[in-house]
Parts: sequence; C-alpha cells; structure tokens
Amino acid sequence: MLSKSQIKLITSLKQKKYRQQHGLFVVEGIKTISELLQSNLELHKLYTTETFNIDAKDEAIISESDLKRISFLTTPNKALAVFKTPESKPIDDSGLIVALDAVRDPGNLGTIIRLCDWFGVKDLVCSKETVDCFNPKVIQATMGSITRVNISYLDLASFLKTINLPVYGAFMEGENIYKKEELLKKGILVMGNEANGVSKEVEDLISEKVSIPRFGELQATESLNVATATAILLSEFRR
Amino acid sequence: MLSKSQIKLITSLKQKKYRQQHGLFVVEGIKTISELLQSNLELHKLYTTETFNIDAKDEAIISESDLKRISFLTTPNKALAVFKTPESKPIDDSGLIVALDAVRDPGNLGTIIRLCDWFGVKDLVCSKETVDCFNPKVIQATMGSITRVNISYLDLASFLKTINLPVYGAFMEGENIYKKEELLKKGILVMGNEANGVSKEVEDLISEKVSIPRFGELQATESLNVATATAILLSEFRR
Repeated sequence: MLSKSQIKLITSLKQKKYRQQHGLFVVEGIKTISELLQSNLELHKLYTTETFNIDAKDEAIISESDLKRISFLTTPNKALAVFKTPESKPIDDSGLIVALDAVRDPGNLGTIIRLCDWFGVKDLVCSKETVDCFNPKVIQATMGSITRVNISYLDLASFLKTINLPVYGAFMEGENIYKKEELLKKGILVMGNEANGVSKEVEDLISEKVSIPRFGELQATESLNVATATAILLSEFRR
Repeated sequence: MLSKSQIKLITSLKQKKYRQQHGLFVVEGIKTISELLQSNLELHKLYTTETFNIDAKDEAIISESDLKRISFLTTPNKALAVFKTPESKPIDDSGLIVALDAVRDPGNLGTIIRLCDWFGVKDLVCSKETVDCFNPKVIQATMGSITRVNISYLDLASFLKTINLPVYGAFMEGENIYKKEELLKKGILVMGNEANGVSKEVEDLISEKVSIPRFGELQATESLNVATATAILLSEFRR
C-alpha cells in the first residue's frame, strides 16, 4: 500500500525542479531497473509487483493498480524504482568528449548517451539549456547506458574556453568528415540544437568544423537528425 | 466549416486499414505540407487556418477549433493535408537498397527514410510486418523525405530469393564493417526488428553479415538502436 506522501514524491519527480530538490529520479521496467541495481547507483526505493529479492527495506511490493498511480508510462512495466541522482565526476580530458549545445529532445539525448557508451566516450558535457538527463523519457531511451557515461551540465562556452583540446563541431558547411586526414583521439565534438544548430557564442570557440556529405540527388533532405549525425561522426572518430 | 463526413474520413486515416481502403494519408504542419505540395504527390484536400494560395477547390480554410477536431497532434500546427497514397515504383536494382525486416517503431522508420534520402538510397523495401510508412508518426519523422524514397512493402524472403545482388545484414557477430575490404555500390542492406533482429528465414538469405564494433569498456550497452546502426552502416557504404 502506497502512502499519499510517497505518491506525491514520486509523481513530483516528473519535473526537473523536484528531481533537483530531492536529488532523486525515476526508472521504470524490470530490465533497466535490474541493470541499474547492478551499477554504482544508489537505490532510494523500489516499488514492484514482483519481488527482486533485494534487501526487504529497499523494496515495496505493490499492486498493479498502485503501480498505475505512480507510473509515468501508459503501460506500466511491473516495477518503478527511485534512485539517488549521482554526482558528476570530474571531466577526464584524456579522451574524446561529446558536448551538446542545447539539445532539447529527450529521445535524442537518450540515443546520444547510448552512443557515447557504445563508442567508449566517457564524458558527455551538456550546456545548461540541454534537456535534463534524468528526465524519465531520457532514462527510457538510454537503456541503462546512463550509468556508464559521466554527464556534466555546465556553461558550455566557459568550459570550452578553459580546456586545452581541439574542438570539433558539426556544421553544414564544415569540412567533409570522410576526407579529414586526421581525427584526433583527444578532443571535443560539439553537436548543436535540433532547430538552430550550434549557438554563435559556442561556434566562435570551435577550431575544426566538420560535416557529413549528402549523397542524395535532387532537392534532398535538409539535415540529419542530431542523434544520427552523432552516430556517424563518432563512428568516424573511432573507425 | 467541416462536414461530419469529412471529420469521419480524416480521423479514420489514423488507422492503416482506412488509409489503405481510401488510398489517402495525412500530413500536418506548414513546412512539411509546403514541401509535399511541391513534390509529385497528389493532394486530396488541404485544411488550413491560413491560405496556401493554391487552387481554391483544393483548399478549405477552417478555424483553429475545427483543426483541433481533425488533428492527430496535441498541438496542431495551422494546417492538415490529405494526400493520395502514391503507387510504389518498380525497384531499381542498380544501386544500394535498404531492406527492413519488421521494424516496428514509427520514429525509427521515419529516421531511416530520412537517412535513405540523405545517402542517396532510392529504394527502401519493407517486410509486410514493418510499420506502415504512411502512419502519421512516420510522416512527421521523415521531414518530407518520404517523397524522394521509393518504398515497397513485400514478402522480404521471396524478394531476396529472386534478386541477384549481394545481401548484407547487420548482426552482432558479423564481420567488422570498418575492416571489410570492399563494400559494393550495388547491394541490399537488411536491418532487423528492434527487439529480435533479423528473422531466421531472412538470415538464411544473407550473404555478408556485418557488425559495428563496440568500443566501450566494461559491460557496455548491448546494442545500438536500429536507426543509428543504419546511419553508421550507410555512412560506411557511401564514404
């Protein structure tokens, strides 16, 4: 049985303001929760219709109808866990870093986190205007990758000014990525907002503008989605 | 003013059954509609709150509240157009073809159509279990690319049996795509279902299994999303 205050707390976590205030976020679905339970993340409380065989004080067995009351999904998937938001670790500047300048779509951010994990990018830095990585839609899209990528929110322009690494950025008029002689193992790859690309302030700090050439004839599509462009660029850096 | 029968027809087009029965589909938003009006697609009727300055008989100026009644979006975007479903053209086997084996997510299909357009892939063939490309969520995700890619729904195994081209397929255990000596300009690239990958029947018809290597350490993410994997593989074919 859920208390009113539990329901109030959990449902409040849909909003970034309350996630930050409580230092908590929500994860749903047996598979992702199981994966996160095995990570460094600290569990606050697990609400589930079937036991996970963890410490009884951490787990509350609830009915399906109670799960429906707290779930953010149209079709709840047996369990909902509340985890403590991890602290960002210091940024490791010895490898490739991905930086996002105001990426707004939760699905895009989730896909990019998964790509960082796949391609061994340890650090993802996000401008303050980028969607919150503990947004439930982002968490669903990351498929557990969120535990393996260190994500920092910061003032992107200030960060780029202080760090001594080549800064690559994706631009329509950039140099053909397939023809670049060398893509360094150390550097920052900046990806811009879905509608407006990289902001002017950040653009001025980019040393290497790169682009993915278009092969279609005729009018053709005007741009690639930011997540698919990140996939192609990371593949080029790593191949 | 909308008639009851107009409202009934338009709202029925959310369902594949009625799209097929009427040979019509819905597109929303000024930008995508404008793009599609300049394509070969044949307009059935445009419902809009502001004139597009097209032939008056093709356009109905309606109120915002009427638009709300017919729109599939939570926030309607000024116009909704009903277009006639184009006939698939014969498949051109002189270039690279992408084939989808039961891709179910509309966003993934939309992204893949956009990628085909970007990378100059003229033909996309879909197994009958693949989500309908005239699904409104697919159309929203294609950003107009749907008019430039020839999409055919067919029995994928039968098609692969009849066509005389190398058949590439994405598999976890396939050959490292970055190390393949030659990727042909002519061929078929098969991408599988989000959860189950390529079906057994289709797998038996694949001559070249390829994979995208994972660079992450530790446990790492188990797979890439089908749309991002398509992005990376098409980039490798074209680079």
